[in-house]
Amino acid sequence: MSNRNDGLMIVISGPSGSGKGTIIGEYLKTAPPTFLSISATTRTPREGEVNGKNYHFLSKEAFQEEIENGNMLEWANYCENYYGTPKKPVYENLQNDRDVILELDVVGAMNVKKNHPQGVYIFILPPSMEILKNRLSGRGTETADVVEKRLLAAKKEISFTPQYDYLIVNEDLPKAVDNLRAIIWAEKSKMSRAEEMINEVYIND
Amino acid sequence: MSNRNDGLMIVISGPSGSGKGTIIGEYLKTAPPTFLSISATTRTPREGEVNGKNYHFLSKEAFQEEIENGNMLEWANYCENYYGTPKKPVYENLQNDRDVILELDVVGAMNVKKNHPQGVYIFILPPSMEILKNRLSGRGTETADVVEKRLLAAKKEISFTPQYDYLIVNEDLPKAVDNLRAIIWAEKSKMSRAEEMINEVYIND
Repeated sequence: MSNRNDGLMIVISGPSGSGKGTIIGEYLKTAPPTFLSISATTRTPREGEVNGKNYHFLSKEAFQEEIENGNMLEWANYCENYYGTPKKPVYENLQNDRDVILELDVVGAMNVKKNHPQGVYIFILPPSMEILKNRLSGRGTETADVVEKRLLAAKKEISFTPQYDYLIVNEDLPKAVDNLRAIIWAEKSKMSRAEEMINEVYIND
Repeated sequence: MSNRNDGLMIVISGPSGSGKGTIIGEYLKTAPPTFLSISATTRTPREGEVNGKNYHFLSKEAFQEEIENGNMLEWANYCENYYGTPKKPVYENLQNDRDVILELDVVGAMNVKKNHPQGVYIFILPPSMEILKNRLSGRGTETADVVEKRLLAAKKEISFTPQYDYLIVNEDLPKAVDNLRAIIWAEKSKMSRAEEMINEVYIND
């Protein structure tokens, strides 16, 4: 399915508190046409969540059918609910020259990477563990126990960083967004994507 | 000699008329500390050329001694004159965390790449062969013969593009400079450069 002129598949991970969602949101405001993948889930919608916007809300039976038909790019089962990425919109957008951004946890990202090693895998980190701890403690409203659990989860996520291509340290939001933009532009400047064009424009002239 | 926190070795090539010198000059105006390598040559200085600024002007004997002592990163002999890149300032700057830019023809670049595959190899092209032709014709002051020779040389250079990591199409100068900046920033964001830092800051915390 992959062509050198296709859009980029950009997979972004980072622990809770890394600011990855905000960075992606800011990037999309001025980005070239980019598709932000929407996950499917079987969990109950929370108040205010819109089907097809926050998630594609599916029944368990429908989700299992999608898995069986090979329609999920990746999926997992947490706390008895399914979560996953529908394959079709991702592939269609890539083939139409649109970049696709997937915001995934490390397990989902690694499941995608198995079949799509040519994707661009980016990990986002806060500038220090102390800052992460502060962000996870939710301005002191969380119990020490909850903060400790979140920290452990963050450390587990961080142990996957060597599997990623790029690291963005989110010290300053506009700079982190620029960094994401630079990585995507550099990836689009890779010679491997230009060989056909060079032959057409410069060699067979 | 290479450490993950060293500066980047950035090798830039492109045919005459690609604007590579101008792009590098503009980049350096706002770049972080970067060392622009100065070539050594045995040819006679032209009027206005300053030793140690435009070139390091050496006698043939001195140049040959430098080659024999392994002090040249790359060298070649054109029209009975030696041209080459002194190794020492390049290595010293890299070890001191400074990026090093080498503006080299394809032969020089490929000679450097043999021993330094971890460098960043960037090729710069004008947006079309027609524009290249116009630039090479020197606003019509050159004979058709000279233009034809330059075009052939350009086509030969372009045949080396698959050996480079990135392509910058110089359609618009500020955009080309931004593209160079994006490539260098992305290279510095590569996970392989951050593993040590991650262990120190986030894992062994």
